Amino acid sequence: MNYKELSLKKHGEWKGKIETVCRVPVDSREALSVAYTPGVAEPCMAIHKDKEKSFELTRRWNTVPVITDGTAVLGLGDIGPEAGMPVMEGKCALFKAFGGVDAFPLCIGSKDTEEIIKTIKLLAGSFGGINLEDISAPRCFEIETRLKAELDIPVFHDDQHGTAIVVAAALLNALKLTKKKIDEIRLVINGAGAAGIAITKFLLKLGVKDVTLCDKQGIICKGSEWLNSAQKEVAEITNLKRMKGTLADAVKGADVFIGVSGPHCVTKDMVKSMAEKPVLFTCANPVPEIDPADAKEAGAFIVGTGSSENLNQINNVLVFPGLFRGALDVRATTVNTEMMIAAAHGIAGCVSEKELSVDYILPYAFDKKAHDAVAKAVAGAAVKTGVSKQF
Amino acid sequence: MNYKELSLKKHGEWKGKIETVCRVPVDSREALSVAYTPGVAEPCMAIHKDKEKSFELTRRWNTVPVITDGTAVLGLGDIGPEAGMPVMEGKCALFKAFGGVDAFPLCIGSKDTEEIIKTIKLLAGSFGGINLEDISAPRCFEIETRLKAELDIPVFHDDQHGTAIVVAAALLNALKLTKKKIDEIRLVINGAGAAGIAITKFLLKLGVKDVTLCDKQGIICKGSEWLNSAQKEVAEITNLKRMKGTLADAVKGADVFIGVSGPHCVTKDMVKSMAEKPVLFTCANPVPEIDPADAKEAGAFIVGTGSSENLNQINNVLVFPGLFRGALDVRATTVNTEMMIAAAHGIAGCVSEKELSVDYILPYAFDKKAHDAVAKAVAGAAVKTGVSKQF
Repeated sequence: MNYKELSLKKHGEWKGKIETVCRVPVDSREALSVAYTPGVAEPCMAIHKDKEKSFELTRRWNTVPVITDGTAVLGLGDIGPEAGMPVMEGKCALFKAFGGVDAFPLCIGSKDTEEIIKTIKLLAGSFGGINLEDISAPRCFEIETRLKAELDIPVFHDDQHGTAIVVAAALLNALKLTKKKIDEIRLVINGAGAAGIAITKFLLKLGVKDVTLCDKQGIICKGSEWLNSAQKEVAEITNLKRMKGTLADAVKGADVFIGVSGPHCVTKDMVKSMAEKPVLFTCANPVPEIDPADAKEAGAFIVGTGSSENLNQINNVLVFPGLFRGALDVRATTVNTEMMIAAAHGIAGCVSEKELSVDYILPYAFDKKAHDAVAKAVAGAAVKTGVSKQF
Repeated sequence: MNYKELSLKKHGEWKGKIETVCRVPVDSREALSVAYTPGVAEPCMAIHKDKEKSFELTRRWNTVPVITDGTAVLGLGDIGPEAGMPVMEGKCALFKAFGGVDAFPLCIGSKDTEEIIKTIKLLAGSFGGINLEDISAPRCFEIETRLKAELDIPVFHDDQHGTAIVVAAALLNALKLTKKKIDEIRLVINGAGAAGIAITKFLLKLGVKDVTLCDKQGIICKGSEWLNSAQKEVAEITNLKRMKGTLADAVKGADVFIGVSGPHCVTKDMVKSMAEKPVLFTCANPVPEIDPADAKEAGAFIVGTGSSENLNQINNVLVFPGLFRGALDVRATTVNTEMMIAAAHGIAGCVSEKELSVDYILPYAFDKKAHDAVAKAVAGAAVKTGVSKQF
């Protein structure tokens, strides 16, 4: 039985990957008087006097909804909010297992940007942070930007920044093995959607100088007529030589290829055309841009994919549990670039020089040590940059 | 230390009365491939093909949000959504402890009827049922009515119907002790808000003939100028003798008084003016309409209150966990009157003839047997009336 069949069978048996539990005694009249009426009126009034107390007297300090509209679920596309639920529930399970965060899946039955923003804003008082998930570009940019500006709790679009952070961590460690400098490499990213654009912006902040971004129509170049607004913005700061052409043209001589696109768009010939010791992170899910065995055969030095079935899994599972753990721990009011850079270095630093190899550039997703390192790094950066309400 | 002080202290220690837990293994690469990517794509696509499968392949079959706008929290009034959270969380804890339901608190930062309806409709695909809580009248009527009409999962405004059902159960058992017939009693209800109006309508359906409803301005009488739309509607079917006057006028000669109003509005003299073997259910929270000791001193035969501090607690805790358990178990598409009547009889039937006394007319809120009885009765009524999608 393959993973797909097994997963369908197991989901039918599990009937839910998370559940809620009661943390307090409710087994006597006295217990009910404390946890519920009449006693509960007192914490209610304490929060009524000072809303911030909701972070002390309820579970709000530790709760994060995983919110989707179901328009960009894995690589499956717009499958609808209900159909996105198994992924959202899975994320919630991982949030708890790896970050100790109480997460809850919420699917929104609308594709309207304003309706989604409004819905989330109206619910924000229930939560300590907001994790946006699998919302398609370019709507996801405005939704996140607006929510970040209008809410005073961390808002994080995982597909953009979770992916950017874990790719950055993988790159940092890959460069240690290729012995190339981050500001000297030529890097090509395929897929100019939410993840690709976020990775581009984040790697530029991390120190990469030469990034070329491609999409189905080819290389993103300033002035190309087919660019959407987010792509236009990123065209200003990438492909500075204003190269035009196909993905095959772009990867010629490139040191690093990062794919957040779709299956089978990279050929063995393309890999052969890359610079010495080529690094390929083919993150398309569930089927990568090129089969890892094919890439290796064509001379790839390091290959990473989004799937847990292969070596070097580059999956944002390594990011979101620890990132929210750290942000919640210090009651951060946002997630800023410094916190994200700290997370990338936190992940990369979990692989010691001795352990590091072409087959092991990132810690395993289920390595609790890695999540703890991310949490610590993120909390520290939040405090340092003054966005913590508690320190 | 009284319950209020103790409750505040305990809430500060608990830091949340519920939490989520992960129900599946995620401790290896293989486990992640089944619970998360790439395997999870398969249950996603199964739901994409048939939305109803979300009740089999995710936790949806067992999840209910406890939703409030914080406008009518306990007897505290409009204290805001965040301040309502300790009550919502308490409800969620009880949902799990007594009904096995996975409930999650959601506070909505809006008092606009349309915005609240819209928000809940957009989220409905995540849940197996909707529990509305502590939303003030008359908005709560329209919110519930519209959601019931537009959604195909059970929608239940607990303050209205939970209260009505538990009061009905208490009345059924009290009448066994007073040996009065349900269609011969004179019954007075004080408090013409959400709960009072719902109790009125429900008791009329249960067989009571003579109901008089009062509010702060006095007896609700057809033609009175101060009535809101919900009160006008109920004025048509109550106080058929078209009596005018005060609460004191109404209770003269009454067999049963039901209070869902505020503290200290019933005097000892009023109790003395009632019929033989007067029954008083003084449900105002946290302070009842008259102190139970005072009521007894003035001749009350049976006294019940909403608080767990007194004997005969008449609290909707006895209703909502079992009611949703039963509805979810048979994938009911709504909560209809038959299901509610079945719930009332289910609760009343949990006190045997031998156990029944003026100090014990209802099972204890923490008696699991009572919740199981409600669940069974509700599920049976749902199947019988054809609103179950599974039977």
